[in-house]
Amino acid sequence: MHAVRPLPAYLVKRYHGWRATDYTENHAWYERLAEEGQRPRTMLITCCDSRIQWSSIFGAETGEFFIHRNIANLVPPYQPDGALHGTSAAVEYAVTSLHVSNIVVLGHSNCGGVKGCHDMCQGHAPELEDESSFVGRWMDLLRPKYALVEDIADEAERLEALEKQCVLASLENLLTFPFVAQGVTEDRLALHGLWHHIAKGGLEVYDPTRDGFAPL
Amino acid sequence: MHAVRPLPAYLVKRYHGWRATDYTENHAWYERLAEEGQRPRTMLITCCDSRIQWSSIFGAETGEFFIHRNIANLVPPYQPDGALHGTSAAVEYAVTSLHVSNIVVLGHSNCGGVKGCHDMCQGHAPELEDESSFVGRWMDLLRPKYALVEDIADEAERLEALEKQCVLASLENLLTFPFVAQGVTEDRLALHGLWHHIAKGGLEVYDPTRDGFAPL
Amino acid sequence: MHAVRPLPAYLVKRYHGWRATDYTENHAWYERLAEEGQRPRTMLITCCDSRIQWSSIFGAETGEFFIHRNIANLVPPYQPDGALHGTSAAVEYAVTSLHVSNIVVLGHSNCGGVKGCHDMCQGHAPELEDESSFVGRWMDLLRPKYALVEDIADEAERLEALEKQCVLASLENLLTFPFVAQGVTEDRLALHGLWHHIAKGGLEVYDPTRDGFAPL
Amino acid sequence: MHAVRPLPAYLVKRYHGWRATDYTENHAWYERLAEEGQRPRTMLITCCDSRIQWSSIFGAETGEFFIHRNIANLVPPYQPDGALHGTSAAVEYAVTSLHVSNIVVLGHSNCGGVKGCHDMCQGHAPELEDESSFVGRWMDLLRPKYALVEDIADEAERLEALEKQCVLASLENLLTFPFVAQGVTEDRLALHGLWHHIAKGGLEVYDPTRDGFAPL
Repeated sequence: MHAVRPLPAYLVKRYHGWRATDYTENHAWYERLAEEGQRPRTMLITCCDSRIQWSSIFGAETGEFFIHRNIANLVPPYQPDGALHGTSAAVEYAVTSLHVSNIVVLGHSNCGGVKGCHDMCQGHAPELEDESSFVGRWMDLLRPKYALVEDIADEAERLEALEKQCVLASLENLLTFPFVAQGVTEDRLALHGLWHHIAKGGLEVYDPTRDGFAPL
Repeated sequence: MHAVRPLPAYLVKRYHGWRATDYTENHAWYERLAEEGQRPRTMLITCCDSRIQWSSIFGAETGEFFIHRNIANLVPPYQPDGALHGTSAAVEYAVTSLHVSNIVVLGHSNCGGVKGCHDMCQGHAPELEDESSFVGRWMDLLRPKYALVEDIADEAERLEALEKQCVLASLENLLTFPFVAQGVTEDRLALHGLWHHIAKGGLEVYDPTRDGFAPL
Repeated sequence: MHAVRPLPAYLVKRYHGWRATDYTENHAWYERLAEEGQRPRTMLITCCDSRIQWSSIFGAETGEFFIHRNIANLVPPYQPDGALHGTSAAVEYAVTSLHVSNIVVLGHSNCGGVKGCHDMCQGHAPELEDESSFVGRWMDLLRPKYALVEDIADEAERLEALEKQCVLASLENLLTFPFVAQGVTEDRLALHGLWHHIAKGGLEVYDPTRDGFAPL
Repeated sequence: MHAVRPLPAYLVKRYHGWRATDYTENHAWYERLAEEGQRPRTMLITCCDSRIQWSSIFGAETGEFFIHRNIANLVPPYQPDGALHGTSAAVEYAVTSLHVSNIVVLGHSNCGGVKGCHDMCQGHAPELEDESSFVGRWMDLLRPKYALVEDIADEAERLEALEKQCVLASLENLLTFPFVAQGVTEDRLALHGLWHHIAKGGLEVYDPTRDGFAPL
């Protein structure tokens, strides 16, 4: 494949730096992780966005988190139709094979995917309406929630509200998976909804008792 | 939603630690990233596996990497049928909205998804054959590659070979996306295939000139 | 200009090597950097000394660092008199045009400029005392700090202490610039003082809480 | 100084990576460099711009280059008036203390400093005209050259021509330093003018026999 090129030098250099420090200092642990298999306590579902500092925020570098990242941290509803469902596969593997105890859905401010959905709903993103737009079809998952925020006058507030609805949509869809619902019922599995404010470094948690997000 | 529970205390504590140190020390940069938008140079596609230390290996905590993680770092072929395609949406967003210069597919040793595909192909995983198995249907993407490794006598070697074929399958499928192919043809986009040995901390790179992987 | 000669062959050869490898492999990124403009997170002020391996130490080859190098990494105090101030121009551009989040002043062992100042202060460098000595007049910036180290008996220790004072002098002078002070006050800009031991590969960081340098 | 903050974690990590690899592998050489002093063959004068990949282009990491970086790689004329002249101090040290054999002035495309001078000359940058603008006063060094390019109709071509004039201005000013002129006359010192095209990775060299720049 002529498309494949040598790895950029800065990545090669950083790898060698990691190999000579972190790996060397912790290799016995990494060897055990490889031999005994992973045993993550928590599954994380978050956005692909390069500004999400998950491993930094939660020290997620020691085999603790099974991490799925996609556009806008969305989980589709349960649909066992034999077609490709990458997110559903990740959830299934985390719950039925790895038996994670927690699933965290982490949304964030300034989300390009949510913004795209917002613009579609306002009729300002015809290119996302096209059938061939993968981002558009993916963000259709969030469209039903737009009605809940459309009356918010301020656009920044409306976008933030939609980002939070995106987290709730994923939590709701997670519960349509029989193995998730069963884990919750049997009290083996807990779900969590978070929203991260990139600029302020804030973290808000969904609180079902007041049906709202509150700062940690 | 009764399923939603308070965030585990160890995560709350780590967040507060991060907030008081890393965030406080670097907030001006995070504010700029939020205000000016992300500008990642590279998209990373890797596995959800909790043992993949990507951010550690490559220092991926400064807005440099747009990260998609799914089971077995698989990319499906281009299929613009209006259905949900989360991985395709992530690739589309990275290439057409963010204009990344590089896409890195990072596979790894001890991959549970690849093992599942291997076992299906050997007839030892009937539960994955079921139409309702999301992991099974997802790993079908890799099945055509099994023929290339089935003659390898040693199972560990066969699995490693299949993990590497999984990286190649994703690279090949990436090239079926018109916007990826165009980026490659116009020399604006380069693809890279890596395989990480968890226990040894090794990193092998696909070299198209010899059609094989070689240690960095 | 008869003084201008062909570029030495070893430089021509290295350039062609870089052009055929690093540039070719990464040109899409370099093109984006040119088109979209630089967005460095950090300004570095260090010495011209050929033994300072900044880009090697910190991987400074990807558009991340705005770099000013002069004799002994000195910053003069704010003096807006309409005269030429090259270092002040670099600081102004970094802070007011590029909005860097960090300014790092990196001093080092075996610094010829600091040694010159030291010798002047001891009366052993008459040639530097001459009004026409650019190095002498430049190093006058450090002279007030000599009193703080002159009681150190061992010359090597005294020189190292003066090299560290040189970093502190620059940090103090940086704060006399209104736009630097404002950035610091508004918490948009952080300053950092480092001292590098060339022979040992060491890096010491100024810690204001103990008013001293400590190894990283 | 409350303005001084801990070094960002990504820099700490990269430093430790460098320490464990490059330094460890080459420490004997670094120890010699520290003990015996630097002996650079060439002085480089280039811009602070974060996109100038000098060490990458020329493999400049082994004590070979004495590097001065300022805004727009400008050298002022010789002016031994006892005032602060950071660039002149760097040139003096390189030539009279280190006895370099070559001085390379490296300009580049997309130069913000040159753009500022250009805009001042067109009357479009009143903020740079202010006496207190360090960048403005520094770029005054280039103003006399504007007349040579102002008739070029296309702005991009005009800017490129001015960037090249900036290299020539520095070469001319270098020759006003008696110790530079003497080195050239005695054939101990050669000057070189380069212009780097960031997007294309190009390098053009000033050729005095045709008074123009030609690609390497």
